[in-house]
Amino acid sequence: MLHDPALKSFASDNYSGVHPEVMQAVADANGGHVGSYGADPYTARFAELVVQHFGEGSTVHPVLTGTGANVVALQALVPRWGAVICATTAHVYTDEGGAPERLGGIKLLTVPTPDGKLTPELVDRQAYGWGDQQRPQPLAVTITQTTEMGTAYTVDEIRAITAHAHSLGMRVHLDGARIANAAATLGTGLREFTRDAGVDVVSFGGTKNGLMLGESVVSLTDVELPGITYIRKMDAQLASKLRFVSAQYVALLEGDLWLRSATHSNAMATRLRDGLVGLPGVTVTQAVEANAVFAILPKHAIEPVRAKHRFYDWNRDTGEVRLMCSFDTTEADVDALLASVRAEIEAAA
Amino acid sequence: MLHDPALKSFASDNYSGVHPEVMQAVADANGGHVGSYGADPYTARFAELVVQHFGEGSTVHPVLTGTGANVVALQALVPRWGAVICATTAHVYTDEGGAPERLGGIKLLTVPTPDGKLTPELVDRQAYGWGDQQRPQPLAVTITQTTEMGTAYTVDEIRAITAHAHSLGMRVHLDGARIANAAATLGTGLREFTRDAGVDVVSFGGTKNGLMLGESVVSLTDVELPGITYIRKMDAQLASKLRFVSAQYVALLEGDLWLRSATHSNAMATRLRDGLVGLPGVTVTQAVEANAVFAILPKHAIEPVRAKHRFYDWNRDTGEVRLMCSFDTTEADVDALLASVRAEIEAAA
Amino acid sequence: MLHDPALKSFASDNYSGVHPEVMQAVADANGGHVGSYGADPYTARFAELVVQHFGEGSTVHPVLTGTGANVVALQALVPRWGAVICATTAHVYTDEGGAPERLGGIKLLTVPTPDGKLTPELVDRQAYGWGDQQRPQPLAVTITQTTEMGTAYTVDEIRAITAHAHSLGMRVHLDGARIANAAATLGTGLREFTRDAGVDVVSFGGTKNGLMLGESVVSLTDVELPGITYIRKMDAQLASKLRFVSAQYVALLEGDLWLRSATHSNAMATRLRDGLVGLPGVTVTQAVEANAVFAILPKHAIEPVRAKHRFYDWNRDTGEVRLMCSFDTTEADVDALLASVRAEIEAAA
Amino acid sequence: MLHDPALKSFASDNYSGVHPEVMQAVADANGGHVGSYGADPYTARFAELVVQHFGEGSTVHPVLTGTGANVVALQALVPRWGAVICATTAHVYTDEGGAPERLGGIKLLTVPTPDGKLTPELVDRQAYGWGDQQRPQPLAVTITQTTEMGTAYTVDEIRAITAHAHSLGMRVHLDGARIANAAATLGTGLREFTRDAGVDVVSFGGTKNGLMLGESVVSLTDVELPGITYIRKMDAQLASKLRFVSAQYVALLEGDLWLRSATHSNAMATRLRDGLVGLPGVTVTQAVEANAVFAILPKHAIEPVRAKHRFYDWNRDTGEVRLMCSFDTTEADVDALLASVRAEIEAAA
Repeated sequence: MLHDPALKSFASDNYSGVHPEVMQAVADANGGHVGSYGADPYTARFAELVVQHFGEGSTVHPVLTGTGANVVALQALVPRWGAVICATTAHVYTDEGGAPERLGGIKLLTVPTPDGKLTPELVDRQAYGWGDQQRPQPLAVTITQTTEMGTAYTVDEIRAITAHAHSLGMRVHLDGARIANAAATLGTGLREFTRDAGVDVVSFGGTKNGLMLGESVVSLTDVELPGITYIRKMDAQLASKLRFVSAQYVALLEGDLWLRSATHSNAMATRLRDGLVGLPGVTVTQAVEANAVFAILPKHAIEPVRAKHRFYDWNRDTGEVRLMCSFDTTEADVDALLASVRAEIEAAA
Repeated sequence: MLHDPALKSFASDNYSGVHPEVMQAVADANGGHVGSYGADPYTARFAELVVQHFGEGSTVHPVLTGTGANVVALQALVPRWGAVICATTAHVYTDEGGAPERLGGIKLLTVPTPDGKLTPELVDRQAYGWGDQQRPQPLAVTITQTTEMGTAYTVDEIRAITAHAHSLGMRVHLDGARIANAAATLGTGLREFTRDAGVDVVSFGGTKNGLMLGESVVSLTDVELPGITYIRKMDAQLASKLRFVSAQYVALLEGDLWLRSATHSNAMATRLRDGLVGLPGVTVTQAVEANAVFAILPKHAIEPVRAKHRFYDWNRDTGEVRLMCSFDTTEADVDALLASVRAEIEAAA
Repeated sequence: MLHDPALKSFASDNYSGVHPEVMQAVADANGGHVGSYGADPYTARFAELVVQHFGEGSTVHPVLTGTGANVVALQALVPRWGAVICATTAHVYTDEGGAPERLGGIKLLTVPTPDGKLTPELVDRQAYGWGDQQRPQPLAVTITQTTEMGTAYTVDEIRAITAHAHSLGMRVHLDGARIANAAATLGTGLREFTRDAGVDVVSFGGTKNGLMLGESVVSLTDVELPGITYIRKMDAQLASKLRFVSAQYVALLEGDLWLRSATHSNAMATRLRDGLVGLPGVTVTQAVEANAVFAILPKHAIEPVRAKHRFYDWNRDTGEVRLMCSFDTTEADVDALLASVRAEIEAAA
Repeated sequence: MLHDPALKSFASDNYSGVHPEVMQAVADANGGHVGSYGADPYTARFAELVVQHFGEGSTVHPVLTGTGANVVALQALVPRWGAVICATTAHVYTDEGGAPERLGGIKLLTVPTPDGKLTPELVDRQAYGWGDQQRPQPLAVTITQTTEMGTAYTVDEIRAITAHAHSLGMRVHLDGARIANAAATLGTGLREFTRDAGVDVVSFGGTKNGLMLGESVVSLTDVELPGITYIRKMDAQLASKLRFVSAQYVALLEGDLWLRSATHSNAMATRLRDGLVGLPGVTVTQAVEANAVFAILPKHAIEPVRAKHRFYDWNRDTGEVRLMCSFDTTEADVDALLASVRAEIEAAA
C-alpha cells in the first residue's frame, strides 16, 4: 500500500476514497462477459433506479467526470447557438478548464451572486437579447445544488427559477455534483427539487458521494434529449466497461446509501460549524447547508492548522478557508480540527 | 449479482471484466484521504513505472477513455492548424464519434491500406501541401499498434514511418489501445517499438488489457508536451479520484501482468486461427498477430454460432466476422467456439 | 494602379476581378446611412430576387466566403452530432483548411468518385450506422454543382440523390460555388436543379461569377433553418455594411447577368476543349460541362505555356492541368493559349 | 437606387457607406487577372504600408469581419489552453455571438470596469492560477482602443498594461475597430500606442473608418505568429479576391485618409457633446475621446428624437443612449440632432 489509509483531510470531498459498499459492488460486478458501452445489466438496473428516484420518464446516461456530465448535459440541452446563464462562481465557469466553451461550444453568461444562488431577478440580468443576432442566445440556466458556497436552494427557490426560465423559453440544468447533500439538507428525495420543481436535466454526481469514478446525466423531460448518446461519445465520455460505473450507482441507489452518506457528511459540517462559531477571530461566512464550511480563521492559525488537517484557501486576503467534510469524516476528525484551531488561537492570545 | 459470470464471448476485449489482480489493487488503494486530480502516491508510482518501461524522460497523463487519450495526445502534439494522417480504418477516424474533429479540432487525412498498416509510401499520399494555406497542414501521423485488423507493425516498420515523418517535420502518435498485445507478439518490451523506434507520444491502453477503466497518454519526447495537463482537463479527461486509475496501471506494470495477459489473449487467438484454418468454407483473412481473428465463415453458420458465442460482423457481404480474445478467454472457450463452427459446417454438408 | 489590367490567366475564376455591372451596383449602393448587419434595402431586395429565382419560401443569408457559406449551411442543416457525406474531391473536404471540422464541428464522411459526382450507390458507402453511438451520424449529403472536376449533375441525377437521402432521413446541401455555370450548361434556371430537385440548402456562390466579394446561403426548405442567423454571426460571417454584398447579388439577379457571365465562361471552356482535342499528346480528361477544362498536356509544353498563361497542375505525375475560364475570358485569350500549346508541340516534334 | 443617400443617423459608424476615395480605389483595382488569396500587388502594397505605419517587422493578414479579426488574432496569440482577460464590456465578449469561444475555443476571463478600460490592477483580478490545471490559463490580455464606451487609453496606460502583462508571461492584443479614432484623439501615429507601447497583435479595423468591407490582423512581434495564415483560412476569413480588401486599406494608408476621417468623426462627437452639455435633463456619461457620445436624455425626448435621427439605447432604465459619429457626419447633421433634442426639452418644459 502506497498511502496511509488513516490520513484524513478537509481539503475536498474527492480526497476521500470509495465507500466500502460501493467497492463491494464493483467487485461483485466483475467476472464473465457483458455487453460494453452500456449494453449490460448494471446499466439497465441503474436506469430503473433513476426512474424510481427521479420519476417516470427519466433517463440516465452515465459519463466519467463532472465536467463531462455538465458539458454533455448542456450540449444536449441547447443547440449550437445557445448560451447558458450561470452564477459567476459556478464550477462550470471557473473550474472546468474552459471545457464548456472549448469542448462544448457553450457560451456562458455570468451573474455575480452573494451566495452562489441565482434568482429570477439575477437570471434577468443576462436573460435578454433573443432575436439579436449579435448576442449569444440565452436558452438555458444552470444552477448548482448544493452550491459551490455550501448553500442549498430550497424547493421553492428552484421552482421560481424554472418557472421564470420556462416562461422565457429557457430550459434549466442542475449541476448536482453534491445533489445528495441537497436532499439530505432539504429532507426530500431527489425528485422533489429536480423533476417536480421543473428542472429539465441534472448532472447527477456520484464521486463526491463516495463513488470511485463516475458521473451521470439524468434527463427529466418527457422527450429524450435528442442526440445525447452521440454527444456523450463525441465528448469522449462513454466508458467501454460501463458496468463498473453503473454498478457503483446501483449500490448508491438500491438502498439508502446515497442519503446516508450525504446526511453524515452534512452532519459533520454542521458539527464543525458549531465548534467554530464563537471562537475569537473566527467568522463562518456562509450558511452551512451541506458538507462545506466557509470560515475566516485568524491568519496566524491558518498554516499550522493546515499542516495537520489540510484544506484550501478561499480568499487569501481575508483569511477565508473552505473546509469540506466527506462520507468518511468522523466526529473525531472534526473535533481534532477544532482542537487544533482552538490551540492556535490560545497560543496567540 | 445481475449478470452471469460464467458467460464468455468473442465480441470484444471490452466485454470482459477486470483482471483479479487489478481489482485487488483497486481495493488496496482505497481508504483514507490522498490528493485528488493526480496529486497522489499511486499516480506518482505509475509515473515511475512508465519511466521504467518506456525510458528516461517519459511522462504519463492518465485519462479516462481511449477516445479521450487519442484526442488529448493529438491536441498536445499538433497546434490548432495541424492535420493528422491516419489509415482509413483507424479507430480514431471511424469509431470515435467524430471526437477528434469535434472535441479536438483535428483534421484527419485518411489513406486506404490493405491491412490497417501505414508505410512511408502510404503516408506520402497525404503528406504534402505544407505552406499551402488552403490545406490543413499535415503535422503528425498516427498509427495503431496492434492495428484494428489484428496485425502488428514490426519495429523496423515503425522506425521507417517515424524516420520518414520526422524528416518531413511531422511527429508520430501511436494508438496503443492494444499495445501490450504488440509487445507480446513482437517479443519486446514497450519501449522498443515506441520510444526507441522514434514514436513521440503513445495512447497507452489499459482497458483492453484487463483494467476496469482508465487509459493514459505517454509522452516520449524529451521535452514535455506543452499544455497537455490543461488539455486533459479541458477535454474532461481528468478524474478527481485519480488514484483509482493509476493503481490499476501500477498493478499492470509492477510485475509482468501487462505481458502475461496479452501473451495469453494472443495465444488464444492463435489457437482459434489454427482451429479455423482448413475448415471448409472458412478463410482467415488477416494475419493473426495479436488477439483478433478475422475470418470469413460460411454464411449459414454465422447466426447459429453467434447465438452461442457472440461476435461482430466485419463485412456482412462477404461473411467476414471479427473474433476477439481477452485476458480471460480460456482454451475451453476457444475449443467450444471451434466445435460450434465445425458442427454447423458438418450439419450443412 | 498597381496591376496590369490587360493580363489574363487560366489559373482560377477568382483571379479575375469584378464584372463592371457589379462594380457599378456597388458604387450606386454607396452614400447615406442604412441599417447595418442586413437591415438595409439591398439585402431586402436580394431576398426578393432569391424567392423569384429559387421559389416561394426560399430565404437567403449573405455571408463572406465560400468556406463560410458551406460551414454555416452545414451547421444549420445538421445538429452537433451530425456527419455529412461528400465526395473525396469535394472542396469542403480538401480545400477549406479543415474549417468544416474545426469551425463547424462537422464530421465529413468521404466517398471516392471518378468524376466528382456522388450517386445513390456511392452515398450508400457511408450511409449506415444510424443509432450506433460510436459512429458519427450521417444526417446530410453535400454535392458540388458544378463539381470540382468541371462536370455537372443533371436534374435527374440530383433528384435521385435527394430522393435517396431523404428516404434515409438525410438532408441535402448543394455547394454552388459555380451554380450559375450549372444552370448555363443544363439550360435551366436555378430552381430546377435545386429546390425542384429536392435540395434543402444551397451555398449560392457569387465570387466565381463576377462578384467582388460575397457568398450566400439559400434555404429552400419551407421552414426556416433554426438558428442560421446566430450561426452566421458566431462563424464571423456577418458583414456589418452588408448592403455592399447584397447590392452585388442584386446586380447579378435583377437581369440576366448571372446567366450571361456563366454562359460565356462555359463557352470559353468549350472553345478551349475543342481546340485541344486532337492535338498530339493532349488528352482532355473530364467532360467539359462548365468553365473548366482538365487536360493532360505534353510535359515539355507545360512550363513554357504556363509562363505565358498561368494555370495550375492537377496531377503532376501525369501532366494533367486545370484550365479555368472566367466571365472576362475572351476568345482571343483562348486562342492565344491554344496557339502557345500548338507552338510548343510543334517545336518539340 | 434603393436607398436615400441623403439620410443620416447616429446609430453606428457602420450605418455609413464607403468613403469616396476608398470606393475609387476599389474601382481602380478592378480589371485583368491577379493572384487570388493574397498573392496580388495590392496586398503586397498594404503590407508595405503596415510596416511604414506600425514599424519594421510588422506583418498584416487581411480578414473579413471584426469578429473574424479578433478570433484569428487571439487564436494565433495563445495556444489551445490559453484564456484571455478582457473587460466585461468588451465587444469580443458581448457582441460577437460567442465566436471567440465557439469558433476559437478561447476562454474569456472578464473584469468589470467603470469606463471600458483595463488597468494592471484590474487585469490582476483574473491574472492568477498559472499551473492550476483546473483553471483556463490566462495567457493574453485584450484591450479595445478606443473602447466600447468611447474612451481612449493613453500611451502610458497601454504601456502599463503591456509591461504588467509581459511580466506575467501574457501577451497583449488590441482590438482596434476604432484604432484611427484613437490616434486622432491621442495626436499620435498608429505605432506609438501599439508596437511602441508593447502591444503584440492588433485587430486593425477598417470598416468603421470608411471602408466597405475588410478588417485585418497586424502582428507586431518580431517573430511571425506561427500558423496565422492557416488559422485565417480555417476560420473562413480568407477572401479569394483579396485585392479588393487590400486596395481599400491602401487608399486609407497611402495618404492621410485614415487620420482625416477619424479626426473628423471625433470632432463631430465633440461638437455633439458640447451641444448637449448643460441642456436640462441631459448628462454626458462618459468622457468623449473618440467618435461616440454616451448621454442620458430626458426620457420623453428619446423616441421623438430617435424617430428623426436614429440611435441605440445603451441603458433603457436610465435613458442613456449612444450617439455615434461617422466619417460622413456633418456639422449640419450634429446641429440638427441638437436642435431636435432642444426642441423636445423645450416642448416638455
